This record gives sequence, structure tokens and C-alpha cells, in this order.
Amino acid sequence: MRHGSRAEVMTFLNEISADYPAAISLAAGRPTDAFASKLGANSLVDALTLYAEQTQGMASLLQYGRTAGLINDLVAAQLNTDDGLAISAERIVLTAGCQEALFLCIQSLCKSANDVLLVCNPTYIGATGAADACGVAAMPLKIEDGQIAKAIEHVVQTLKVQGRTARALYLISDFDNPTGHVISRDERVSIIEACLRNRIVVLEDNPYGQFRFDGVTIPPMAALDEGGCVVYLSTYSKTLCPALRVGAASFPRTLFGDESALHALISEVVQRKSFVSVNTGQISQSLVGGILLSQDCSLRNWVRPALELYRDNRDAMLAQLAVAFGTAETVSWNSPAGGFFLSLNLPFVFDSDALKTCAKDFGVIVMPMSFFALDDSHCQSVRLAFSAVSSSEIELAVQRLSSYTDSRKELYV
Amino acid sequence: MRHGSRAEVMTFLNEISADYPAAISLAAGRPTDAFASKLGANSLVDALTLYAEQTQGMASLLQYGRTAGLINDLVAAQLNTDDGLAISAERIVLTAGCQEALFLCIQSLCKSANDVLLVCNPTYIGATGAADACGVAAMPLKIEDGQIAKAIEHVVQTLKVQGRTARALYLISDFDNPTGHVISRDERVSIIEACLRNRIVVLEDNPYGQFRFDGVTIPPMAALDEGGCVVYLSTYSKTLCPALRVGAASFPRTLFGDESALHALISEVVQRKSFVSVNTGQISQSLVGGILLSQDCSLRNWVRPALELYRDNRDAMLAQLAVAFGTAETVSWNSPAGGFFLSLNLPFVFDSDALKTCAKDFGVIVMPMSFFALDDSHCQSVRLAFSAVSSSEIELAVQRLSSYTDSRKELYV
Repeated sequence: MRHGSRAEVMTFLNEISADYPAAISLAAGRPTDAFASKLGANSLVDALTLYAEQTQGMASLLQYGRTAGLINDLVAAQLNTDDGLAISAERIVLTAGCQEALFLCIQSLCKSANDVLLVCNPTYIGATGAADACGVAAMPLKIEDGQIAKAIEHVVQTLKVQGRTARALYLISDFDNPTGHVISRDERVSIIEACLRNRIVVLEDNPYGQFRFDGVTIPPMAALDEGGCVVYLSTYSKTLCPALRVGAASFPRTLFGDESALHALISEVVQRKSFVSVNTGQISQSLVGGILLSQDCSLRNWVRPALELYRDNRDAMLAQLAVAFGTAETVSWNSPAGGFFLSLNLPFVFDSDALKTCAKDFGVIVMPMSFFALDDSHCQSVRLAFSAVSSSEIELAVQRLSSYTDSRKELYV
Repeated sequence: MRHGSRAEVMTFLNEISADYPAAISLAAGRPTDAFASKLGANSLVDALTLYAEQTQGMASLLQYGRTAGLINDLVAAQLNTDDGLAISAERIVLTAGCQEALFLCIQSLCKSANDVLLVCNPTYIGATGAADACGVAAMPLKIEDGQIAKAIEHVVQTLKVQGRTARALYLISDFDNPTGHVISRDERVSIIEACLRNRIVVLEDNPYGQFRFDGVTIPPMAALDEGGCVVYLSTYSKTLCPALRVGAASFPRTLFGDESALHALISEVVQRKSFVSVNTGQISQSLVGGILLSQDCSLRNWVRPALELYRDNRDAMLAQLAVAFGTAETVSWNSPAGGFFLSLNLPFVFDSDALKTCAKDFGVIVMPMSFFALDDSHCQSVRLAFSAVSSSEIELAVQRLSSYTDSRKELYV
């Protein structure tokens, strides 16, 4: 997919609901609005005041500040508590949302024209788009039976023949966007081994890890990484709110065992950040800092109401999918244990024309999975987001989607 | 100057005061803290509430939003009123501070390996640093007697011979950082003519334009541009506060007379922004929006106390420089009519060693002008910032600087 079209999809993702106001959107992967009152103006002022009082005061917060960030110690504490990461403040760079962290890391890791970013296929458009914007080639892994490590070894050999080098691997380990997939613990370990062998830095993006509905938490790859190959990308967009634009890159203790190489990488990311955005807005950082202080540096309690809403929504979606498509052998879907998304496989091609017909004539917006693919694959799947809708909207939306698929029965393969 | 060293200077600029806490800093170009109480937590909540009430409400503000921005209409109104720009909302892209606008514009305008960004010499490090970070060559203009347009024509010819093309020109038209220089109205017109002739886009950065102490306001180049070559970069970092990280790029009606080329450029900047930072934090934007609403979309009254403080500080600095160096024929300085900075020319080289000695042994921090230069020039000048200190600190700092220069009398040329 070309740069322009990826950018269009990104814009589309952010703006589609306005185009079809009457349609129910299962497209946007935004967090629920249901608990927005927790971040009302008065809560925000409380957070800001608390942070200012416990630190250097308000006047200093309103200024420019350290490029690497202001609240790194609190973020470190939260990642320790909530994500099980043994991270220290000086290995964290605060960024304008996780997207900036991703952009800066790709820029810093893939500097030669022959350097390649490996990605799953389909994958988050912000990753492939950031690679495009940096002029870096994104190469899809050919993953069979979930064996990512095997696919890495394979692509590394292919690239070597071409005189190219895989420098980084982007993935979402928990409740993938767009698929909802979770990488198993064994596979995480295998990926780390493959990446250490081939000196590939893993950019582990974990926006949805706090939203596990059932089953046992698997440690992030960054917590399993002893050799120094995993950079952990995190964000407060899903746990608190997207309007803060506060994310972070957390670096391992060494880079492939080399401490000075690690410091050089952090330093390069910070330097590049100074020329992209100077530093991350300190009002936003202080708001996050105040909330973290008020929550003893854990967001577990804070996210619980949203987590329960997402679980109910997933259950509502699974139930309605069973009602609508339970007897259709040619329709299938996964049952994610957390996150915001599931994948639905249809017996016909679902493209942007289908998307528009669906939105305009059937009143439901879903994302063609092909929008997230780097090739022509996945053209018969759609991504269904259940995070920003109510369970009754989900019921209605799945019914409408079912009406649409009924209208296309003649196309079933 | 190499990328690394520019980045070091940028970090230095942001972080130096912490290294020499006992020294008075005339280095940082940050706004005064004296009126920080105007942006206390309660004022911020008032601004946020006002904006939320007058628009779509709080829940929607807390979400992701349009990549190009949320408060474009209010920013347009303010730029019309305060800066005399006939700009409309759809030609404005809100950014994470002016730095992001600069980065995105350079990235979007200079895409070929032979494309060059023209800059004054010395110039703001964020501009040359952003060019470095985009892999774009920054070429210093050889300006004689303030004739920038003539220097443009000259460098364009030189580049042509080399098979290279000047695509953009970065400058600060009012109260330049680092020199304090103002480009005259006639010169502004000449630069626009030269840029139209050579299809060069002017990136006119105007962070200090609101802070004119005396004399008559000169319209920004963007207000004089009929042919479509000036992109106006603005920020709320100096008028409101840096911690907001809200800036904007305002585009002309056409690009060199071509309306569709202009739309393509805006669209590219927006697309690139979506992969760098998704969108500009809506909490920060709403804070700016609320303040603009409360001020009838003009910041003239808001900045007046700071403007008066900066004027008093400039006067205090000029007075003390006259006391300290008035009889020294080999020391000279300019008398800026606004802004945050003046240039002081010394009779000896003032480098980073001098900076450290000055800070450590004499208790005053000043910026070597060579830090802002693209070549070995300007090694006998320093930049003195009078924005973030009190007038009594200025007196003391200039006295200390004078003691330092006395200690180096043997080096006078």
C-alpha cells in the first residue's frame, strides 16, 4: 500500500463517523466515552494541582522542560506495578502519544536505505505509516500457524540475499489491532530469541494490555527480554484518554548486551524528539502525573469500569454474532480475551465499496481488514471494534451487518 | 554543524540552568514566569469549561479528533486580529508546538535528495536541527547589508550549478532568535518577490511578533504575500505558555498561484502529522480555545503585562551594557525593538569553554552566537536573552559578564 493510501486510512479511521452520522460505527478503535466524567474539568484541575504541589510547583510546569520527559519516575512505577516491567525512569522517554515514540524509534533504528522494519500482516496502520513517513520499507512477515519467530528467520535470510537488513520488528503482543490476537508466552520467548540472534529490535506496542477480560496475563515481551532487544511502547490514550497525547518508549537495560549502544540509542531518540516536538506537553504530563499520584501509580482500579464495559461489549458481540451467523459455515470469527477488536471472516470480498454501501444503506460501519494489510491478503475479513459503542448498539450493528451479508448471498464462495 | 552537536545545543538550551543553579541565565529564550498565576489550575479549568460548553462538550474533547486540529476557527480569528493575516480555518494545521509544524513542512517541501532549505546565518537551531532530522541540507544565505533577497538569488544560482534546488527558506521576520533583528518591510517584499521568482516556500516563523516594545509594526510576510509563497508558523508557547505545545502552520491561498498544489501540500502535511503524532492534544487545544474565547480572539491584552516586563528588561539590559561596556570601543550590541534577545559583539572568541568558565567562575550563563551558526562565523558574539530574568538579575548578570570580559582583556584584538 502506498504512503498516501495509508494516510487516507488513518484519516478515515479518525474521521469516518462524521461522514455517516446515522450509522453505528464498529470502526473506530477509540476508548469508551462512558466514564468521561472521571476526567471532567474539576478532576483535571485536581490532578494538576496534586502534581504541582508534590513537585516543583505550577510556574515551572508551564515552561519548557526536559526533552525526555517530566513524569518518568511515575510512569516507571506504573509500568512496574501494572505491566510487570522492571524499568527505571532514566530508560523512559515520554512522547506525544505512542505514535511519536513509534516514529522516533523507527527513524533512529532504520537509518540506512537498506534497513527494513518487519511487521505482522495485517498490522496497525500507524506503524507502517510511520515507516513510510521515515522513508523506511515495511516488510510483512509470512506467519504460518502463529509461528512468528520462524517467519522472522525466514525473512532475515531473504533480506540478506537482497543486501537488506531487518533492524526492527513492530508488533502488538496483547489483543492486537486489528486482529485481537494474543501472542503466546512460548512464542514471545521464541521471537525474543530470534531477534537477539539477528540483532533485531522489537518495538512491542501494548495499548490494550490493561484490558484483559479473562484468562491469565502473559508478561509483556519486555519483561521476558534478558538480552536487550525489546523497546516497550505504551500510551495513556486508552487507559486515561486520547486527548492527553502522552505515551512512552521504555528501553531495555542494554542493546544486545551493550550498555553504551543502548545509551546511544536513547540519546538519538531524545535528540530527534527535540527537533520534532521539543518536549512532550508538560500540562498533559502533569495531568497524567497527578492521576498516577492519586492512584498510587497503578491504573488497575481506574480502568476497571471500562474493562467491565469492554468485556460486556465483547460478550454482546459474540452473542449476537452467534445469533446472526451461527448457522453460516462460511462465516467465522475469533473470541478475543481482551482489547477492543475482533476479526470476522466473510465468504466474500469486503472492500471500500462494501464499507460505503454498508454504512450508507445498512447503517453500520466496519473496517475492511485489507486496510491493515500490506498485500492483497485478508480481503474477506473485517475488523469489528466493540470499545466505543453500547451493547445495544452492538446488537443492532451486528444485525445490520447480517442484513448486508444476506444481501450479498449470491457472492458467497 | 553536525546533527549530534545541534541536538546537544538544543538540549543544552533546555537544560543548562539545572547544571549551574547559582548562575544567572541569560541563555534560555523562555517566556517569563512572572504571570504564571494567570494560568493557575483554576484558570485552566475555566478555559477548558468555557471551550467545552461553547462547543461539543467535554467527552468529545477527550477523544481523538481531526488531524488538522480542533480550534482552527479560533486560531484563524486570532491571527486575523493580532497578526493581520487574512487566514481561514481550513488553511490552518494545528501542531504540537511550532517545532512540529516546522518539521512537517520541511519534510513535505524537501523530498528529493537535492532539495535544500535556505536559512539565515546564524539561525534558530530548531530549524537546522529539523532539517537534519529530515535528512535535508540546510544552506546558509550569505547576507550582506541585510539584503536577504539578493543572497537568495545568489545561492539559487550556485545551487543550480550543483544540480540542487532551494525549496524552502526559513526565517524569523520579527525580533529574530538569536539576533533580535527585524526584517524591514521593503526587504520582506523583496524576499517574497525573489521566492516567487524561484518557487521557494518561505517558512515565516513569528514567535515574538506580539512583543514589540516600540516603533511601528511591520506586517508579517504572510500578510504581504499575494503570490502564494509564505507559510506562517505561529505558537502559543510565548503568548500563553510552552507547556501547552500548541502551534500552527497557516498556508497561503495558493501555492505559487496554484490552488490544487496548495491543497496537495496541506494534505501531505496533515498525512505526515497523522504518522508523527496522530493529532494535537485536544486538552491543550481546548485550553487555548477557551482562553481565545475569553479574550475575544485577541491576545493583545493578555500579553500586555509580559510585554511591559520584557520592555523594562530590555531597557535594563541596554542601560547596564552602556555602564559596563560604554567606553569599550571593541564591544558593541544592538537595540532590539522587541522580542527576547539581543546580540553582543566581543573583541575575543566566546566559545563553549568561555561559556562554562563564565557560568562556573563568574555566575552568568550566556549563549555563544556560534552555537546558532552554520559555519565558523559569529565566534565573537553572544546572544543575551532578557525574557526570563528580572531587571535586577539583568544588572547583576551584565556586571558579571563585564568582570569576565575584564579577565580576558589580554585576548582583546
